[in-house]
Amino acid sequence: MAVYTEVSDEDLERFVGDYDIGEVLSCKGIAEGVENSNYLLHTEKGQYILTLYERRVAPADLPYFLNLMEHLAANKIPCPTPLHGKDGKSLRNLCGRPAAIITFLAGMWPRRVQPFHCAALGEALAKFHLAGASYAMSRRNNLSVDAWRPLFQSCADRADRVKPGLSSVLAGELDYLEANWPRDLPSGVCHADLFPDNVFFRHEKLSGIIDFYFACNDFLAYDVSICLNAWCFERDCSFNVTKAKLLLSSYRKARPFAPEEIDAMPLLARGNAMRFLLTRLYDWLHHPKGAFVRPKDPLEYLRILKFHQQVKNAGAYGL
Amino acid sequence: MAVYTEVSDEDLERFVGDYDIGEVLSCKGIAEGVENSNYLLHTEKGQYILTLYERRVAPADLPYFLNLMEHLAANKIPCPTPLHGKDGKSLRNLCGRPAAIITFLAGMWPRRVQPFHCAALGEALAKFHLAGASYAMSRRNNLSVDAWRPLFQSCADRADRVKPGLSSVLAGELDYLEANWPRDLPSGVCHADLFPDNVFFRHEKLSGIIDFYFACNDFLAYDVSICLNAWCFERDCSFNVTKAKLLLSSYRKARPFAPEEIDAMPLLARGNAMRFLLTRLYDWLHHPKGAFVRPKDPLEYLRILKFHQQVKNAGAYGL
Repeated sequence: MAVYTEVSDEDLERFVGDYDIGEVLSCKGIAEGVENSNYLLHTEKGQYILTLYERRVAPADLPYFLNLMEHLAANKIPCPTPLHGKDGKSLRNLCGRPAAIITFLAGMWPRRVQPFHCAALGEALAKFHLAGASYAMSRRNNLSVDAWRPLFQSCADRADRVKPGLSSVLAGELDYLEANWPRDLPSGVCHADLFPDNVFFRHEKLSGIIDFYFACNDFLAYDVSICLNAWCFERDCSFNVTKAKLLLSSYRKARPFAPEEIDAMPLLARGNAMRFLLTRLYDWLHHPKGAFVRPKDPLEYLRILKFHQQVKNAGAYGL
Repeated sequence: MAVYTEVSDEDLERFVGDYDIGEVLSCKGIAEGVENSNYLLHTEKGQYILTLYERRVAPADLPYFLNLMEHLAANKIPCPTPLHGKDGKSLRNLCGRPAAIITFLAGMWPRRVQPFHCAALGEALAKFHLAGASYAMSRRNNLSVDAWRPLFQSCADRADRVKPGLSSVLAGELDYLEANWPRDLPSGVCHADLFPDNVFFRHEKLSGIIDFYFACNDFLAYDVSICLNAWCFERDCSFNVTKAKLLLSSYRKARPFAPEEIDAMPLLARGNAMRFLLTRLYDWLHHPKGAFVRPKDPLEYLRILKFHQQVKNAGAYGL
């Protein structure tokens, strides 16, 4: 639920006047997303999403994100694309923040993930990775293995308050991941946050991929493992191998895995379980009292991590 | 910011199937309103507001609210109107809660109130009151003078934590209001919550009145005094008599005040300052830790109350 910046009607009208989309009819804050302020903007020409980028997004990264959406949309990936103002610019300022208007995508994200969602996701992710190959810009993944130790250190002394023994589990896993993290898997543009609330469906067909504000260049199989963790575990954190098989088999039809990607999958899945466990733990321990956003439960990813720790090879995922 | 109930895509599609508005294209939670869950619903036929009524709204009151919107819209008051399902019903169930789809109104609520807003508001409120005269249903104001002592009692022992001395100010004011509250002013249907965020404007013209979930039968001049307090005080709680004059003079052009309404205005304004002070104080002291909704500052209405306490007669409001 996120609207951090209140935009006045006067400021909004001035801002929208820099585009060729007619007059504002309405503008309502959307109770989704946690990083930025999002508004559903309705003008004489149609519906759009207005985003004000808040402090967690580095302004220097915004051209990477906005140009990526444009590149992907031009390559037939169903994703929003930023509007250009009358001066040609897509990145502007509103209420002292970087801001952009992007196109609106129809569809609903699945509240209850079903196997057919995973099949559609696999294909879309592979096509996303293929389309990303011709994208010229690059951005380091600042939440990959290098980032985990500093994150851990800022939580280590209080982690056991969340669950006794958590700190030593994290310390041991971190040593293992740092020692074994792969160095040269096929790389490219990753979405890096492809959770169900970022994927829209209509009539059981995937109709849109949104929220590119964690996108970065990293191992493509790491991006796959993010989806494995986000889409193929049930609410009780049990692993649904039917969903995993559908996800991975439809992915590989569009972009076959290299053998080393298959070998690395359990490790990558552990790594990204660690990534979300650590960032959620950090938010859990550091979120201000009375904040609007309820932090997500970090322990969900501890259970996912434990599943992958006991996996012997990618066969466990149906690969 | 309010979305208390998460609606699944399957439940939503079934629910919308009971109406004749085509298929769902998208549905996004709106970060406005604090009492109910509101979604901006986009279907093949257009845009609508989907509301799920949460615990603060008594289900028995919903027919009063929904029928009132329909009555007012039929009488040319610019307000949303509930859609009827294929079975003719406007009040239905979704996710175990009473729910309704209402029409969507274009416009933005004024973040910074200007004098022209107050002039337009006065006229619209008077027309609202006139249109309400032919409304058949009735609902007691359960937040009027009878309700204030129990509210006060549930806050009295902790009020001084919010501001030293507050408890005795409230006790004294309550005695005064109970002893002097008028008994027979002109009555009718009141909106009873006509704050700026419930009034939309387009091109400096009032385009809509929303949120009828506090509507009730009470003194019409009491409803006027709510607007006086909500629209004519600046952010520093200084009183803007220009705005008040415009509000009241445009109101009386459409519906002239009876002399006893003018006489009672300072008392009514004190009363409703007390009403919002008490309900905000109650929410301030009782809101759960980690709740999504940031409670509103009760002391704003203490300053407004103090202003009215020193007013000698309605001349102070430009009447």
